Amino acid sequence: MDSTAKLIELFKEFPGIGPRQAKRFVYFLLTRPNGYASELSKLIGEVKSHVVCCDTCFRFFARNGNPVTTCPVCRDEKRDGKTLMIVSHDVDFENIEKTGSYNGYYFILGGTVPILEKNPEKRIRQKDLLELIEKKVARGTLATEGLSEIIIALNYNPEGENTLTYLSQILRPLAEKHNIKISTLGRGLSTGTELEYSDSDTIKNALKNRQ
Amino acid sequence: MDSTAKLIELFKEFPGIGPRQAKRFVYFLLTRPNGYASELSKLIGEVKSHVVCCDTCFRFFARNGNPVTTCPVCRDEKRDGKTLMIVSHDVDFENIEKTGSYNGYYFILGGTVPILEKNPEKRIRQKDLLELIEKKVARGTLATEGLSEIIIALNYNPEGENTLTYLSQILRPLAEKHNIKISTLGRGLSTGTELEYSDSDTIKNALKNRQ
Amino acid sequence: MDSTAKLIELFKEFPGIGPRQAKRFVYFLLTRPNGYASELSKLIGEVKSHVVCCDTCFRFFARNGNPVTTCPVCRDEKRDGKTLMIVSHDVDFENIEKTGSYNGYYFILGGTVPILEKNPEKRIRQKDLLELIEKKVARGTLATEGLSEIIIALNYNPEGENTLTYLSQILRPLAEKHNIKISTLGRGLSTGTELEYSDSDTIKNALKNRQ
Amino acid sequence: MDSTAKLIELFKEFPGIGPRQAKRFVYFLLTRPNGYASELSKLIGEVKSHVVCCDTCFRFFARNGNPVTTCPVCRDEKRDGKTLMIVSHDVDFENIEKTGSYNGYYFILGGTVPILEKNPEKRIRQKDLLELIEKKVARGTLATEGLSEIIIALNYNPEGENTLTYLSQILRPLAEKHNIKISTLGRGLSTGTELEYSDSDTIKNALKNRQ
Repeated sequence: MDSTAKLIELFKEFPGIGPRQAKRFVYFLLTRPNGYASELSKLIGEVKSHVVCCDTCFRFFARNGNPVTTCPVCRDEKRDGKTLMIVSHDVDFENIEKTGSYNGYYFILGGTVPILEKNPEKRIRQKDLLELIEKKVARGTLATEGLSEIIIALNYNPEGENTLTYLSQILRPLAEKHNIKISTLGRGLSTGTELEYSDSDTIKNALKNRQ
Repeated sequence: MDSTAKLIELFKEFPGIGPRQAKRFVYFLLTRPNGYASELSKLIGEVKSHVVCCDTCFRFFARNGNPVTTCPVCRDEKRDGKTLMIVSHDVDFENIEKTGSYNGYYFILGGTVPILEKNPEKRIRQKDLLELIEKKVARGTLATEGLSEIIIALNYNPEGENTLTYLSQILRPLAEKHNIKISTLGRGLSTGTELEYSDSDTIKNALKNRQ
Repeated sequence: MDSTAKLIELFKEFPGIGPRQAKRFVYFLLTRPNGYASELSKLIGEVKSHVVCCDTCFRFFARNGNPVTTCPVCRDEKRDGKTLMIVSHDVDFENIEKTGSYNGYYFILGGTVPILEKNPEKRIRQKDLLELIEKKVARGTLATEGLSEIIIALNYNPEGENTLTYLSQILRPLAEKHNIKISTLGRGLSTGTELEYSDSDTIKNALKNRQ
Repeated sequence: MDSTAKLIELFKEFPGIGPRQAKRFVYFLLTRPNGYASELSKLIGEVKSHVVCCDTCFRFFARNGNPVTTCPVCRDEKRDGKTLMIVSHDVDFENIEKTGSYNGYYFILGGTVPILEKNPEKRIRQKDLLELIEKKVARGTLATEGLSEIIIALNYNPEGENTLTYLSQILRPLAEKHNIKISTLGRGLSTGTELEYSDSDTIKNALKNRQ
């Protein structure tokens, strides 16, 4: 297999990219000036070496040459240490952070628990999460401002709901022991929802949570 | 224009039906046994004569030969007289009723108020709504179980939001005078919502209304 | 089941109409003035009684009170008696007639032959087709201007191709005996075809039939 | 702007890729093992240096270390020197070659001529095309097997049609002088075409080119 065919194979692994678009990517690179391809090539290497996984919240962040292992959000002491939000992926973190309406800390699960999964602990960073909470609780006690709420912020779909149920169970002992509230994102009408096309769960939630 | 062409014109007025499908409807009728077409023809007439608009909530209901002018829901005295839910259309009523989680009364607005509309009162049954509330308030006082909450249940889109704002304004005087709470459906994640694809408003609402 | 529910059931049988749209149709009728519904009701009856199936080509046509049993196209003696075009449905006839580039006669098969169908003769008007061709051949001999070409004009998809193969076989004996050419619609690029997204068959046809 | 943001910008230039998917690509790279990213990075460089543009037909081909400047197809002397096929892009060449039903040579125009374009010669490799034809004609005369047909194989859409008209005009003098036939791909039904949804042009072509 020549390098063109190999490159097409690699592009085919990109999320959402089929064989036709993978080939188009190669032709696109061929028709661009050499500078574009070499810049792309260089940046791919750079990103892989400069971006690391935070040792606290496990999201990716650019180290930018510094020898740090903790991301700027986790290092930011002005954030509210009383809340911890659990999300599945980095993009969820980004999207929530963009709203500017949350000022606590985060934890990236790194996945979700599929329904009927036999080894849920292999799908998400369960051990790291429990350790982080223990650490926060310990620190909090000393500093008289301990963790008081864990927000589980997952997609409202079957796999997200299953992960929520699983997380609630494994977090309950710790939560009860240290008097931490476990909350989830509110349910109701989301932007664009039309009642005519809504399912019963959404309408029930919207009624129950009316304001 | 012959009857086929005229029938195609009528079918083209059906919601969501273009010229091609209107023509298909006619061919469909031609290929069906005569019984189907005559049954259809008969039922269209029947529905128009048996189904009337309720004089209280303004939804359509089948009178089934009875000389009533009020729908079964409005006549049902076991319902909770303290709440009134305002919806745009009959389908919204149906969808909410189907959830089984609301037991008060309804009012069908018959439309929504488009943004920048100069005569909102022509788009919705404003006068009828105010009269109904006045009547309920009067009756309530006597019966010592008056109206205490009006739920405005509209689509969460720009036109729905505009209608909500308008309704809130015109209902405020009555609500304040009679100590009636005005509420809206809860906002947050609806079934299927994925955080990666959510807009900031939905995430903000979900965070604010977390539970 | 009341008349509204029955009407919804009937609308659900309309081609391409699901339960939600069927219900919308009923609400649409309820909100229209009485005149609309009664006109619709009347026209459905009229169309069923005024429109009949041509005894020659088997397409639907409006008799408009005349006691004729043959459609205007089949009665038009200025058309070219040497060609007969076989199509599946009335809409195909309409679409071809609209182009103004065919001046012969038609025959409506009334269906297609699915792949692996065991009784193809039950899916299409095979017997009527053979009789019509025999009649045309006989008449043609007398008039010294007999049928010289049968154009099979079907969709270019698996079921259309299967029907084409089947028709070719059953027409071959007649065609050979009376020296009638059997042709099919040309293959190649159709409006909008882009080479990048074309399958091999289309490209092969386009190359073979280049002009 | 850090390297992650820069990489997202570069991915956003990929054909059909928006900001959201560009970001997903970066996260995808971050979660893959280092080997994947370095292989991708290496191959992008390799492809740009190993793949060159053929000096005869102007398509991209992998040189694989050889100092050749002409692609294998143009160097293949067993091909039919009497036909030259003009296509817009490399993918068209690939798609046609895949059918195995053409054995002549190719020329990649490198674009199409938009309607109302004032400088068509800047959109396509016009000069190179004319030079190639002159060369083939000269060689052919000597070898007594000269170019006898030029097939213009473009998309059947407005821009393709416009390019066809333009090319026909600029090729006519040469074609007439050297007795070369100019042909285009056949028109008619393409795979999947249904008569009910076909436009008049497609039906007219299919009727005219019936076989």
